[in-house]
Amino acid sequence: MKVYKPKNRLTAQAYIDGVLQGSRVILSRAITIIESNLESDKVLAKEIIQSVLPHSGKSIRIGITGVPGVGKSTFIEAFGKYLTSLNHKVAILSIDPSSQRSKGSILGDKTRMEELSNNDNAYIRPSASGDTLGGVANKTGETMILCEASGYDVILVETVGVGQSETAVHGMTDFFLLLMLAGAGDELQGIKKGIMEMADMVVINKADGDNIRNSEMARLQYQNALHIFPQPDSGWTPIVTKASSTKNTGIRTVWKHVLKYKTLVEENGYFNKNRNQQKIKWMYNNINEELKHLFYGSPQIKNKLSILESDVISSQISPVKAAQYIMEDFKKNM
Amino acid sequence: MKVYKPKNRLTAQAYIDGVLQGSRVILSRAITIIESNLESDKVLAKEIIQSVLPHSGKSIRIGITGVPGVGKSTFIEAFGKYLTSLNHKVAILSIDPSSQRSKGSILGDKTRMEELSNNDNAYIRPSASGDTLGGVANKTGETMILCEASGYDVILVETVGVGQSETAVHGMTDFFLLLMLAGAGDELQGIKKGIMEMADMVVINKADGDNIRNSEMARLQYQNALHIFPQPDSGWTPIVTKASSTKNTGIRTVWKHVLKYKTLVEENGYFNKNRNQQKIKWMYNNINEELKHLFYGSPQIKNKLSILESDVISSQISPVKAAQYIMEDFKKNM
Repeated sequence: MKVYKPKNRLTAQAYIDGVLQGSRVILSRAITIIESNLESDKVLAKEIIQSVLPHSGKSIRIGITGVPGVGKSTFIEAFGKYLTSLNHKVAILSIDPSSQRSKGSILGDKTRMEELSNNDNAYIRPSASGDTLGGVANKTGETMILCEASGYDVILVETVGVGQSETAVHGMTDFFLLLMLAGAGDELQGIKKGIMEMADMVVINKADGDNIRNSEMARLQYQNALHIFPQPDSGWTPIVTKASSTKNTGIRTVWKHVLKYKTLVEENGYFNKNRNQQKIKWMYNNINEELKHLFYGSPQIKNKLSILESDVISSQISPVKAAQYIMEDFKKNM
Repeated sequence: MKVYKPKNRLTAQAYIDGVLQGSRVILSRAITIIESNLESDKVLAKEIIQSVLPHSGKSIRIGITGVPGVGKSTFIEAFGKYLTSLNHKVAILSIDPSSQRSKGSILGDKTRMEELSNNDNAYIRPSASGDTLGGVANKTGETMILCEASGYDVILVETVGVGQSETAVHGMTDFFLLLMLAGAGDELQGIKKGIMEMADMVVINKADGDNIRNSEMARLQYQNALHIFPQPDSGWTPIVTKASSTKNTGIRTVWKHVLKYKTLVEENGYFNKNRNQQKIKWMYNNINEELKHLFYGSPQIKNKLSILESDVISSQISPVKAAQYIMEDFKKNM
């Protein structure tokens, strides 16, 4: 079987050198290799990642989430511009398993981040496409490694605020920021379970004009609500602030708290501990996914499972016995 | 190889008949078969469960949790006595992966539930022993099935309030009750993440004497705090009440709300939907555990994983590649 090999590929070394030298063009092309599903690209990707890996990690990774309409893009534009004004190199990635490259994801929408996308010290990459969250998260995680190796020292990872992608982003970042809006009491309805308690910081966005008063009330309400969660392992007490991305207020405060957090966790050892745990967990997540794929991907197993499901619901077989039964079958045919 | 077979075992049919006829002695002996790790008992257990399964399910299953010191045993004693006074048959089980039969678990402590343990309509069974939470949960889940088949129409499943056992109990019950104490503002510290939002009802226990005022304040505080969670799928709005197990106040209120809940979810279809989902999830949890056991139980895999972990931490290999590497190995040697 002849493996299809695109003609416009560079050598692995050319990608590695380009990335390490900070070339945006080569960085983009290297990320394309990472995101590719072609077998020949996967071999190339492995070699690139392997070589740049020791040069990665020197950044602060910030996860940013919030429901659609909260103003994530304008916030990231304002935050990113502020960071580049401090001479940081900022990479903006996103995890959105529902997006497709052809449609363009939120972050790829140039009209929304016009200034930032023309900024030499900002690198915006739309979400990789993929069928599974695990697959998309892998690609975003490896893209993060490439960006760091290329000199980006602040990585913003956006998530779309629906489904399980927040957990994936939380699992690959150092600091987790939740954007919220002041509302009519039910402002938390759109936020999935467990998101609140992952937040290191909650920012009440659009705190401007007539909305300032409501935003301050929401801020107090969230600050109180956060008390019901146990203190996170980092030793950090999550805080709530207000910001206006359009009026450009509160943006410095966000960064100030990120730096405070960084100092704290570097001193108490949590920064490295957390990063190491994240890497190990990333590996095990991949293993467990592949294991499930091996099992549930089998058409034989699929057929039997649908029969067992009905039998379990109609109490013809207990869930425990059903599991034993199908596992014996799997081992026999393995 | 000769399989060890205990001499004092009855025939499967004798267990089945005894359980269905409501014999406490046979019920206890049948549960011992379920909990046994002997191969011959596993075969017997399978037959018993298979036959009584169609007779199970006709009960309300209530999960009860709270940190040590909250007064779970006295609450369950008061609640159980009240239920038996209404002619309910009450089975009290527990999930405690850390307990060992020889040590006796909290619920086995007769001095704590003296009256209830002498009550003909109450059946108290200490936690099964086991190495894994999954194993203990399986045994408790199947014990629940036996109790229901034996005519118990209220099942209380207690959890020790530490670790992941709350999620297991939540996954096998219809109604989840969290016991709390009024405290000095930090009363939630002992509660693990996510427990609060599983609760259908929070009961501020020990609301008596000098503590009544504080308990009312805690009640209001929790009632407000619960608003930050999204409405559960059941359509039920979680409520917070006060109780005193020693003064026997607030116990009727708990049962009143359980019945209200039951009426609601039976009418809106959630009761059956949830039970079916629980059964299916129980099956898949077992399958996934067995799969992991198959993989991680291999000494070869264990060795390689410990090497890969160090390589991942020292950034010599990416987590994704490490996972691919070991999976290829597993498939080859399968």
